[in-house]
Formats: sequence, structure tokens, C-alpha cells
Amino acid sequence: MSQELFTINNLWMMMATILVFIMHLGFAALEAGLTRAKNTVNILFKNTIIPALGLITYAIIGFNLMYPGDAFEGGFFGLNGLGLSLPEGWDSYAYDEGYTFLTDFIFQAMFAATAATIVSGAVAERIKLGPFLFFSLLYVGICYPIVGMWKWGGGFLDTMATPFYDFAGSTIVHSVGGWGAVMGAFLLGPRIGKYKGKITNAIPGHNIPLATFGVFLLWFGWFGFNGGSVLSASPGEVSYVFVTTALAAAAGAFGALLASYLKFKAYDITMVLNGILAGLVSITAGADLMATWEAIVIGFIGGTLVVFGVVFFDKIRIDDPVGAISVHLVCGIWGTLAVGIFGDLAGGAQILSQLIGIVTIGVFCLAFSFIVFYTMKKTSGIRVDEQEELEGLDINEHGMHAYPDFATKE
Amino acid sequence: MSQELFTINNLWMMMATILVFIMHLGFAALEAGLTRAKNTVNILFKNTIIPALGLITYAIIGFNLMYPGDAFEGGFFGLNGLGLSLPEGWDSYAYDEGYTFLTDFIFQAMFAATAATIVSGAVAERIKLGPFLFFSLLYVGICYPIVGMWKWGGGFLDTMATPFYDFAGSTIVHSVGGWGAVMGAFLLGPRIGKYKGKITNAIPGHNIPLATFGVFLLWFGWFGFNGGSVLSASPGEVSYVFVTTALAAAAGAFGALLASYLKFKAYDITMVLNGILAGLVSITAGADLMATWEAIVIGFIGGTLVVFGVVFFDKIRIDDPVGAISVHLVCGIWGTLAVGIFGDLAGGAQILSQLIGIVTIGVFCLAFSFIVFYTMKKTSGIRVDEQEELEGLDINEHGMHAYPDFATKE
Amino acid sequence: MSQELFTINNLWMMMATILVFIMHLGFAALEAGLTRAKNTVNILFKNTIIPALGLITYAIIGFNLMYPGDAFEGGFFGLNGLGLSLPEGWDSYAYDEGYTFLTDFIFQAMFAATAATIVSGAVAERIKLGPFLFFSLLYVGICYPIVGMWKWGGGFLDTMATPFYDFAGSTIVHSVGGWGAVMGAFLLGPRIGKYKGKITNAIPGHNIPLATFGVFLLWFGWFGFNGGSVLSASPGEVSYVFVTTALAAAAGAFGALLASYLKFKAYDITMVLNGILAGLVSITAGADLMATWEAIVIGFIGGTLVVFGVVFFDKIRIDDPVGAISVHLVCGIWGTLAVGIFGDLAGGAQILSQLIGIVTIGVFCLAFSFIVFYTMKKTSGIRVDEQEELEGLDINEHGMHAYPDFATKE
Repeated sequence: MSQELFTINNLWMMMATILVFIMHLGFAALEAGLTRAKNTVNILFKNTIIPALGLITYAIIGFNLMYPGDAFEGGFFGLNGLGLSLPEGWDSYAYDEGYTFLTDFIFQAMFAATAATIVSGAVAERIKLGPFLFFSLLYVGICYPIVGMWKWGGGFLDTMATPFYDFAGSTIVHSVGGWGAVMGAFLLGPRIGKYKGKITNAIPGHNIPLATFGVFLLWFGWFGFNGGSVLSASPGEVSYVFVTTALAAAAGAFGALLASYLKFKAYDITMVLNGILAGLVSITAGADLMATWEAIVIGFIGGTLVVFGVVFFDKIRIDDPVGAISVHLVCGIWGTLAVGIFGDLAGGAQILSQLIGIVTIGVFCLAFSFIVFYTMKKTSGIRVDEQEELEGLDINEHGMHAYPDFATKE
Repeated sequence: MSQELFTINNLWMMMATILVFIMHLGFAALEAGLTRAKNTVNILFKNTIIPALGLITYAIIGFNLMYPGDAFEGGFFGLNGLGLSLPEGWDSYAYDEGYTFLTDFIFQAMFAATAATIVSGAVAERIKLGPFLFFSLLYVGICYPIVGMWKWGGGFLDTMATPFYDFAGSTIVHSVGGWGAVMGAFLLGPRIGKYKGKITNAIPGHNIPLATFGVFLLWFGWFGFNGGSVLSASPGEVSYVFVTTALAAAAGAFGALLASYLKFKAYDITMVLNGILAGLVSITAGADLMATWEAIVIGFIGGTLVVFGVVFFDKIRIDDPVGAISVHLVCGIWGTLAVGIFGDLAGGAQILSQLIGIVTIGVFCLAFSFIVFYTMKKTSGIRVDEQEELEGLDINEHGMHAYPDFATKE
Repeated sequence: MSQELFTINNLWMMMATILVFIMHLGFAALEAGLTRAKNTVNILFKNTIIPALGLITYAIIGFNLMYPGDAFEGGFFGLNGLGLSLPEGWDSYAYDEGYTFLTDFIFQAMFAATAATIVSGAVAERIKLGPFLFFSLLYVGICYPIVGMWKWGGGFLDTMATPFYDFAGSTIVHSVGGWGAVMGAFLLGPRIGKYKGKITNAIPGHNIPLATFGVFLLWFGWFGFNGGSVLSASPGEVSYVFVTTALAAAAGAFGALLASYLKFKAYDITMVLNGILAGLVSITAGADLMATWEAIVIGFIGGTLVVFGVVFFDKIRIDDPVGAISVHLVCGIWGTLAVGIFGDLAGGAQILSQLIGIVTIGVFCLAFSFIVFYTMKKTSGIRVDEQEELEGLDINEHGMHAYPDFATKE
């Protein structure tokens, strides 16, 4: 590789890093927008601390857990020291990744917090702040990099006869978050007033422009999330990924629009917004493999799944205020399977490998989050008390309101 | 061209693609901010669906209509198949555009929805959702790419003795939207309460921070809109375009500030915001041609024009809630003429060519939008009924409010 | 340098330009969010005009003042004509900066307005619009470029035996704003109701999501602010700067979280947000020098300083609505000193040079802003009258409200 190509690749990876960074603002805005005004400070607080936490823990341990090196090839766990130590030639093309060691670190570090951010949405409006941050510390610092190592760090999912395939993380990033989300929401129980007997009460989000900003910023950042996962500026590959990503997102909007219109007879903007995210999560595992029409089909199906997912989780009384489980877990699984179905890889053997990846990662993440959440539930407690929940977490945990100048209803 | 330069050019075009993408959030925020809270969900819904619609239709037909190939050189219409089929060598510098086929597609596709987005602002707060989406489908999928073909696809405006000049689309993008906007606003009629006899009642936008976000995001994205229209990362050309673009926007702010202060004796932020957009639209046709001082003059005049435009359209009782017609049509025309005046091209002959482009495109777009809107007006209807307009489109078309937790005035 | 490297470097500097541009939206959002709804239009107006003003003045005089050329080497002041005239070979690698003349200009021009933006926050909610804009004109057009010339333009701070070191502007950009802020806030006096005898009344910001957007956008843009200050796309250097920048920001969040929790026993999101900015300002002077752990330490200390700074300035009755002085001045000084302490440069001599830079720039900026503000105070006046302050600047200076559809408290 020439110095020029090395510099270009590195530049693209840095731009992708920034794009993934701004996704954290997208998550913050989406989650805040789809919940009530009395909990907005709490949600923004969590979503501001999480990327900070992700960067620091990834520098101390996460990066070393996720890429422990050849000695742990095919394994389940490895640790390659603590902290960042710059290898010889880290800033030249001698560092054989096509970009520098620190670019490698910072791009991966920006992903790390995502798993906890996804959980944040599903447990919103009722979880205690301290326990949530403690969970996030462990989930981002330990659980996510271990799972990431299984595939991207050369672990057993990568060395199977038919390797598990997950281009940019439908499973490794989004489902990891989704499994923690489902466990957290289950152990916490629903928000007060959400379910009454057989009836599900919609609790509308307080700020739809904020939610819309969130989704557009996530889509914007996703070009770096998927495009950066090419790991070079290779013109053919990056432009290919841009096109599949954009078309899947667009198709997801239409899938959710159609499904929600048929189901609810209304033009539901929150479903369309989640449909875009559904399309994006669905294409993430195979964004480098799909033809134009396949990207559209995969995204469209993802968009419909998110609508049925929301209905389903309400039916089984798992209260997910922002639909995070449907978007990230359901579509994460769908996108990962779609690689086996459409991806023109190893046929039936590939589908089996995809299932192995989905199941092993699911079991690990469910067990990890159960242990952490359940231990806290039996000790510190994980849920705010009833009065605090009714009054809002903002005034009780933070001593302030998000919009003190405005009169509220109720 | 070396592999390195090909990769750099392609990278810049991809970054420009993302920048144009985020302009759709800018449009959504601006339009929502400058209208009333009771219609916010409706506006965000439209502006979320439109880019999705644009991407899908451009993949199916728009790109083939706009770039039908040499066989249609000098013509008015051409169609080169349906859907995207990757040409041989599409991802190498053998594809002679300096970037890949898919980069070409996705950059152009991000532009496509803009025409409908501009219309959206002018018809806001009273148009029925279904008919608007149907209009958008036809305008984005058919009208815009046909007009684009006339110049950028090698059509008759490009092959005239003195070719029409429109660097990044003052006419081809912005005026196309503007003509549809003026026709839509005319056929719909003004919002209830806007005009009473000789009096024009201001209907203030409900969220000025949202509108401000919109304009800054549009300015941000415009560096990709204009800068990407260089179609390469050529250092001299791209930096030239960045400077003219930034200075015209800044000068537009001052032009609108001065004109609105003289006219209304107040520091009107909505005029300053529209002045920035006016400067941007005005420089778009000749961003690669103008000297520093010319960019400032063109932007400044654009900024003043937007103030007079708003007053003028109110005088003739065309109700444009966000000033879209003044920004995109008036300044689109001004910027296109400015190329003839300042651009150091073919003198009087150039001005004539610019006029030919403006007029032929105007006639086509007016006719197209008249046929579509008028047909719907006489069949399905295009305007919501009075009660719905008074209560707001959000609760009637979408069954929800944008800010359900807050108490509203009235 | 090859044409390819020239093109890549130029591309990165252009991207950095856009990233710095969007910081102006970040400042606008942060300042508006942390103040009251009745002054929001005024704040957005200022923050929209300032970057426009910065671009125009920098084109006319600022750039020529800041980079007057070799003839003024080691000096205090120089002026190299007026306006932009393109030097021979400005767009090729003959222009020996590694990017084009116009890229050089536009990147620097985007920085220019920052100084006034910082002042804007500290004087918010009580300063008259006209006088503030006049101050901004002089501060951005004259004061900032003169100070910038002292170091970046080859002036006396750059030619000392041990040159002053300020990588991306902890002092040259942020403290310059901070000194103006402290003088403005001092001469204006506190907002009505802020201090009563010994009691400090918190005046909470009206829109925490807006403030959060502001900080994330500033962090996002800071990758261009610091990363662009490498002045090339050099992979090792840019990725190094990205990592120190990101880690310092993250550590700043934790420093402020800890200090504010110990001090106030609450999870204060505004402190965490300011802590992120504190970390960013603190690392800016030495982002290219610090090891990972040093960046974390510097950012963490910055985060704690901002909490103590806010308490301190309240104690001495300097009312700074958004904490701008603590963030930009206190942490600007801290970051500049940290270069001497951690930076592995010239030891004690370096610390002395850093102090010389801090003090000479501080004295100049204090004197400059005193003369401008004090002259206006004695003539036109700089503070709105009491009734206007109580009713809000929006309705009095701009004749409109930021959120007219919502019911407010009080």
C-alpha cells in the first residue's frame, strides 16, 4: 500500500469515527423524544455519560479484550494487557490494518458504548441512575468486547468451518444491546399505568421533533458505522455499502408505514422513524453483500417487523418505551439471518452458522445481564419508588426540570 | 487518473453525499420550526417520507431518466432502462466519472427529494397528506429528473450554442422546487386567518430554535451540495466553492438583516435565517465562477430579495408559511441570472441562455404541477377541511400531538 | 509532496472547516438551552449573526492581520493589505502550506467568530443587541487576529527563545473569548434576581435537550478544531489528536460529575455538559503532545475546575449564565499550563513561556474589551433597561417569541 492510500484509508476511518460518535446524540435525542418530559434530564444524563464511559473503559480494558491477538485465535476469551501501548510503527503502513493503531482504537471505541445506549431506551423512565450506570460499566467494558472478540477478534465464531458473518454488527452490536434491553425491561417490570388488565395504554413521547432529529442523526452516522466497517476507503466497497444502507433505511420507512397503517389506520410517525432504524439494523450484517433489490427487501421486512415487534412485546407485557427491543434485537436477528438467506455465501451451512452466532451471543448476553441486573435488584434495587416514578426522575434524581419555563399538562 | 486520486475523489463525493443527506433534516427542522405546533407531526412525517421516497424512486427510475446516455444528447426526454444495473468496471477508474457508478447514483439520489421538500414548506398547514405524497412521488420521480436531464444529462440546455450554466442547481434544483411551491400554494389558497381584507396577519412559527437548527444544518450540508458539485476533490476548485458558498451565505444574512430592519424596524431572526438560505441559493448556480467580492454581492442581493419576496407574495395573497418561494424560486432565478451578469462567460448571449433555461424549466414545472395538483383538487381534494385545519393536522391525520406534555396557548 | 497527498491534506482541511463551522450551531444551542425562554430569540440571533460577521470581517481584514507575512516576524502587529488576493499558484502544492490558499483562509475564518461567541454566553440575557454586535465586530475583526498573529502568524510569542506553545488555541482562541467574557460580565453586572445579599439564586436553563445538542455538536466539531490544527491529514498525527481529544472530553465529564456530586449532592447534567467542554478546552493546547493517560488527567482536572470556577465566579458576583468563563478562560489557562507541565518540551522554561503567553494575551484582551465595552457603557449604554430584562429581550428587541404556541410559567 502506498503512503497515499494509507493516508486516504486512515482519513476515511477517522471521518467514520466522527460519524459514529454523533450517533450517540442521535440515541439521546430519540430516547428523550419518545418518553415523557418529566424524565428528560435523566435520559440525557445517561446518554451523555455512556459514551464518556465507553471511551474510557475501552481505552483501559475493552480494546484489549476485543482484540487480544493471535494467541487467542478460535477462543472464547482473551486479554492483551491493560491500557493502550503504541506498537512499533503504529502510525505507518507497517501497522498492517491500513490505518493507524490509534485510528483502529478510536473507531472501535466509538462503537463500544452503543450496547448500553440501546439498553437505556428499554429501561427508561423507571430505572435508578446508579444501578444503570453500573450495569453500563460492565456491559460496555466487559460483555460487549468479549462477544466482539468471538468474531471480530478472531474468536470461535470466526474460525468455525463456515464462519459466522456479521459485516458491521447486526448481532455483535445491535442484538447485544437488544438482549440486555429485553432482560432489563423484563426484570424492571412495566411503567406504572402502561398496562391495565388486557389494555395497553400508549404513553406518548413528549417531543416528536427531538425524536426525528435522533433518527436522522442515526441514519447520518450509520454511513460511518457501515461505511467505516469496510475498514478502508476502497471506492467500490464503500459506495456499495452506502447504497445498500440508504436504500434499506428508506425501505424500512415504507415497511413500517404500510404495516402500521394496516394495523392502526393512522400515519404513525414514531413507527416510520423506528422503521428507518429497523431498515438500518437489518442491513448492517450484510451491507457489503446485498444487491439493490435485496437491500430494499431486507429493509422493508425489517420495517414491518418493528411494528409487529412493538405489538408483540406489549402483548407479553414487556414495556419498552422507545421500541428498542423491536428495532435492535428483532431486526438484529433478522438482518443476521438475511445474510444466510440472500448473501450468496455457504447456503444452508451459512444459515446454521448465523443461527449459532445469534444463539451463543444471545445466551451469553442474557446470562450476563441477568446476573448483573438480578444481583442489583436483590441488593441496591434497580427501580425508583412509585412516587419518584410518578413525579418524574428529573426532579428526584437530578433536582431539576428539562423545561422549567413551560407549563405542563396534568 | 491514479488509483489514489480516484479514491480521494470518490471519498469526497461520498462525504458530500452524507452532507446533502443531512440537509433533509435541515428542511424538516426549518419547516416545522416556522409553522404552528399543531401541525408539527404532519410536517415531520412528510419530510421523513420524502427522502425515503426520493431514494427509492431515484433507484427505480429517476437516475435512468436523468442520465439516459449519449443516445438522447440534446433532447428533451430519455429513459435508460429501469433500476440500477452495474456497468462493467463500475468501481474502478475505468468508470470515467472519477468516482464509482454507485457514488454517482447515491450523490444524485440525495438531491432528488429536495424538489418536493421545497414544495412541502409552501403548502404546509393545510394540504392533505395523501395527495401531497402522491404529488411528491411524481415530482421527484419524473418531473425533477426530466428537467435535470435537460442540462446535467446532456439535454438541449446543455447543447445550445451558448449552453445554459447552472453549477449546482439554483434553477435545476431550487427553482424546480420553487415553481411547484408557487403552484401548490396558489391552488390551495391561504391558511384560514392569514389574510383579512387588506390585512396580512403574521402566523408566527412555534419553535425558533428548531428553525435555527434547520438553517445551520442546511448551510452545513450546502458545503456538500456545492462542494460535491465539483465532482472531484480538486483542491483549488473545492476550496474556491467553499469560500464563495460561505461568503454568500454570510452576506445573505446581512442583506436580509438590513432590508428587514428598514422595512419592519425590528431585528427579525426569521428573515436573517431565510437570508442565509437566500445567499446560498443565489450562489449555487455560479459558486465556481465568482470572485470573493462577487459572492458577497450576489449573496447580499439574495438576502434583500427574500425580504421583498415575502412581502410581495403576501401582497398577491399567496400564502407561503416558511418563505420557500422567496428563497428557492426568487433567489434561484436571481442566482441563475447572476451567472450571466458576473460570470465572465458569454456576455449577453449567456444572459439569454440563462433566461431560456429559467423560462423553459419554469413553464414545464408549472404545467406539471398544475396538472397534478389540479387533477387531485377536482377529484380527491387537496385541502383538509376547515375543522381539521383549525384543530391541526397532527391530531386529525396522525392521531397524535408533537408535544403532548406541554400546555398550549389559545 | 505528491499531488495525491496535497489533495488528501486539502480534503481533510476542508472537512475540518465544516466541522468547525457546525460548532457555531453548538454554541447557539448551548447558550440558548442554558438561559431562559424569554431571551431565546435574542441569543439565537446573536449566534447566527456572529459567524456571518466573522466570515466577512476575516475576508476583509482579519486574515491579513493574522498572517501578515515574514516582514512582521517576531512583531506585535502587522497588516498585509485588505481583502483576499489569490497568490500565484494558490491552488497547487506550490502554495507551500500543503493545502490551497483558500482552504487556509476558510479554515481560519471559521475559527474567527468563536471568540465573540464565547463572550455572548457570559453577557446573555441583559446586553443590548446593537452594542454587542459592535463589540463582536471589533473583537473578531481586530482583537482576535492580532493576538493570533503573535503566535500563529509568526509574532513575538512564536520567536521567543522558548516559543509559547498552543497547538489549537486553548489560549489563542478560548481564553481570548474568556477574557472578553469576564470583562463584559463584570461591566454589565449580574442579571436581576441572580444575587440577593449572600444568596446566589440558580436561574435554570429553559431547554436541557437544546443544551445537550449544543455540547455534542461542539464535541463533534472539536475533532475538526483540533484534528484540523494538524494542518495535514498525516495519519499518525491526526489519529493521535483524535484520541487525546476524545479521552479528555470523556474524562472532563467524569471530573465534573464527581466534583459536582461532592459539592451539590446531585447528578447535575449542566455540570457534566460543561465538564465535557472543559476537557476539550483543556486538551486543546497540547492535543498533539499528551499520552493517553495524560489526556485523561488533563481532561479530568479541567472537568473539576469548571465546577469550582462556577462557584468562584458566583462568589465574586460575576454572573455568567452559561459558565463560559469557567469553561473557556479557566480551562484555557489550565490547558496552556498543562503543556508546560506534561508536554515534555522545555521544562521550567516552557512553563515560563506559557505564562508569558497567557499574561500578555490576557492583558491585551482585557484592555481591548474594557475600552470597547466601557466606551459604549458611557455613551450608548450596554444594558437593556429593567423592564425589558424582566419581560425578556425577545419581545423587546425582536418583537417576537421563541415558542409562541406554548404556555409559560410565572
